[in-house]
Amino acid sequence: MGLKSFFEPASVAVIGASTKPGKLGHEILRNIVEAGFKGGIYPINPKADEILGLKCYPSIKEVPEGVELAVVIVPSKLVPSVIGDCGEKGIRAAIVISGGFSETGKEGGEIERQMIETAKRLGIRIIGPNCQGVSSTSVGLCASWPLVKAKGPISVISQSGTVLAALACWAIEEGMGVSKLVALGNKCDVNEIELLEFLANDPETKVIALYIEGTRDGRKFVEVAREASDKKPVIVLKSGRTAKGAEAVASHTRSLAGMDTIFDAAFKQARAIRVGGVEELYDACKGFACLPHPKGDGVVIVTSSGGSGILATDACEGLGLKLVDMPEKVRNTLREKLPPACILRNPLDLTGSATSQMYDDALTALEAAPEVHSIIVIIGDPMPGITDVISKHFGRGKVIVPVMLGGGEAEAVERKKLQKIHIPVYPSPLRGARALAILRRYAKVKGRGGT
Amino acid sequence: MGLKSFFEPASVAVIGASTKPGKLGHEILRNIVEAGFKGGIYPINPKADEILGLKCYPSIKEVPEGVELAVVIVPSKLVPSVIGDCGEKGIRAAIVISGGFSETGKEGGEIERQMIETAKRLGIRIIGPNCQGVSSTSVGLCASWPLVKAKGPISVISQSGTVLAALACWAIEEGMGVSKLVALGNKCDVNEIELLEFLANDPETKVIALYIEGTRDGRKFVEVAREASDKKPVIVLKSGRTAKGAEAVASHTRSLAGMDTIFDAAFKQARAIRVGGVEELYDACKGFACLPHPKGDGVVIVTSSGGSGILATDACEGLGLKLVDMPEKVRNTLREKLPPACILRNPLDLTGSATSQMYDDALTALEAAPEVHSIIVIIGDPMPGITDVISKHFGRGKVIVPVMLGGGEAEAVERKKLQKIHIPVYPSPLRGARALAILRRYAKVKGRGGT
Repeated sequence: MGLKSFFEPASVAVIGASTKPGKLGHEILRNIVEAGFKGGIYPINPKADEILGLKCYPSIKEVPEGVELAVVIVPSKLVPSVIGDCGEKGIRAAIVISGGFSETGKEGGEIERQMIETAKRLGIRIIGPNCQGVSSTSVGLCASWPLVKAKGPISVISQSGTVLAALACWAIEEGMGVSKLVALGNKCDVNEIELLEFLANDPETKVIALYIEGTRDGRKFVEVAREASDKKPVIVLKSGRTAKGAEAVASHTRSLAGMDTIFDAAFKQARAIRVGGVEELYDACKGFACLPHPKGDGVVIVTSSGGSGILATDACEGLGLKLVDMPEKVRNTLREKLPPACILRNPLDLTGSATSQMYDDALTALEAAPEVHSIIVIIGDPMPGITDVISKHFGRGKVIVPVMLGGGEAEAVERKKLQKIHIPVYPSPLRGARALAILRRYAKVKGRGGT
Repeated sequence: MGLKSFFEPASVAVIGASTKPGKLGHEILRNIVEAGFKGGIYPINPKADEILGLKCYPSIKEVPEGVELAVVIVPSKLVPSVIGDCGEKGIRAAIVISGGFSETGKEGGEIERQMIETAKRLGIRIIGPNCQGVSSTSVGLCASWPLVKAKGPISVISQSGTVLAALACWAIEEGMGVSKLVALGNKCDVNEIELLEFLANDPETKVIALYIEGTRDGRKFVEVAREASDKKPVIVLKSGRTAKGAEAVASHTRSLAGMDTIFDAAFKQARAIRVGGVEELYDACKGFACLPHPKGDGVVIVTSSGGSGILATDACEGLGLKLVDMPEKVRNTLREKLPPACILRNPLDLTGSATSQMYDDALTALEAAPEVHSIIVIIGDPMPGITDVISKHFGRGKVIVPVMLGGGEAEAVERKKLQKIHIPVYPSPLRGARALAILRRYAKVKGRGGT
């Protein structure tokens, strides 16, 4: 069986659904309902008749209709028999949220072994156990927390539920949305390798974010990640870089963190792009979700803030992006269009007197310059009308990376407007430049990228 | 004259006040009114009778009462004579917002020279020209934009108006507030050195953030910054690190960026702490504003998210903080208090089943451990009641650094509550750890810091 039943099930049972708000078995059922899942939803709880207006069954075996996916939130020692019941019911996919398995020691490990044995025998695939579940926005399935429903192009595979949730929360807050979120947990069966393969072929996923603490089959990982990277960007945050971090990994998911340099080499070979933190992971996803691939290294910075332009310059230079000399032709055009106080270099400093019209003139002139591939547009002051200007030039071939800071309430209004039409906005010169550098790195490893 | 008239004037004139919303001369007048300035406010504009309900005068000389501070927003060529009028009126402090001076070339340079000459002759001190103004929340003065009124312990000196405004916007958004904000502009008279000296002795300022592109008197800067650092932390963001960045500095404020390594050495000698970006600058200020100085290197991470705990571990290790082995006594206490699934190491992993009560137990046990100086508390799930727990343990001697991510709406509620009582919350393990490392660095250079 493939993994489709996890992401597009016709129906779902919540085994261990609870009547009590605040309990996971209640919150997850509610999230499935509130995210708008259209298929059958079956709460399973022997002590309740109804939860959240849905008829409740004492056992999965009593559900009269067919069930495709089980979400399991019962104490670990009950899980092997629950999986057995699922098999009898014809279910072939189960997300086991419950903890209390191998992560807790020998006894839990034995329960996990029994569960896997039962699942294997009955042909049931398992995500988890000890995980934060799965979301799939295209079918309104949120078998996880917090509530996620905004559809978007980012998919995430994560060995940490919190990293998963953080990316989702930020993506939702910024109107970006997500496609598929998977918390790996103990990955007793389905692991990051198989999921990478699945998401690589998922037309709704444009970029894959991966948080891992280790992998059990490095060779296979490299092979699959490389194939995935040929199709779409794969961004990896791998923890356990330091000695103490590696020790913590061993306690957390019993993964062998291994020598960090080996992972570096493996990611390179896999053409996956490694990042250093959760925010960098998100910023990169946001860029890939919304921006085209830069066709070369040439960057121009356009700014109303001289200081921010210099900070962006330092960041670009440090990240291997190339600030091109302002092309003579652009300079001549702009000399006629812009007030004399503007500094017609790179960064192009429109000064604190900048207006949206001046940004428009600058972007129009730069669009015609073949040596310019990307434009970091820094708006460092309240700038009414800037959304119209950026959206006009967006998607005309150059990569436009908007950065907004210091503009107060007027800025918040324009930022929301841009995010609404899926134009990403970065909160600082460094974060904008870093996202652009990652976009460029991917374009280069893909060989799409000119020089 | 000292600089007090810039920050605590009895009255202020806005020379070049405008009737038109959107124009700087209007916005700044409005911000002065809206920030709640209690002294006399005198708009000067020969073509208007009244602006925003305030009587307008054709010239500063016509104002019947005495005026302490002038805010000047008229075209540059008029500024020298305006400064002359200010002198006649007895004004000894002027903030010149207008651009069109030395930053634009020779002609503007000549106007700047005339302005300085007049000011020197009349004993007028000038901040600017070509700057984003000054805010001083204790007297409700916002001669700048955007509107700033929330009082707090952070003061900022910045050669970039946008960096200044970005810090202020973030501080306001997070309920932190600011004390004094100064945009240096061309710093034709008052410069970062004199302001550092002033803010070092300002009882309302607990931490000084500094963004500079260069300094004209390195020796004096080091001397004054060192004296300031003895009194309170001085955090510096210096741009122009790279060759292209240094070129951009030369165009922007005509500062000589100089060899970056020289600045590094100078900051070290001055005991100022250098940071790498605007967010890091803000995160450090936030930490100094609200947290005590760590009394040693020993850090424990308490987390509901195993993955985030490992990311924090990597960050701490990389930043020179020392993750202590979980003290045996704490481990024994917690073994009785916490569920067996918790991992009683460092990071202390409360697992996804964490509750506020478990955080309380953990913090109580850690408080008694002398080898623990700081605790990074990561909340990676919705955690009702966590504000009460953190505020209970806050200020009991250990440095508590809360990090929240992935908790959706429930998290936003608790974060707001914490910010309201001036407990800082960091949005990722890396940002929390980085802020703590900077706190620790300062404690060490101050010699307060144990080993």
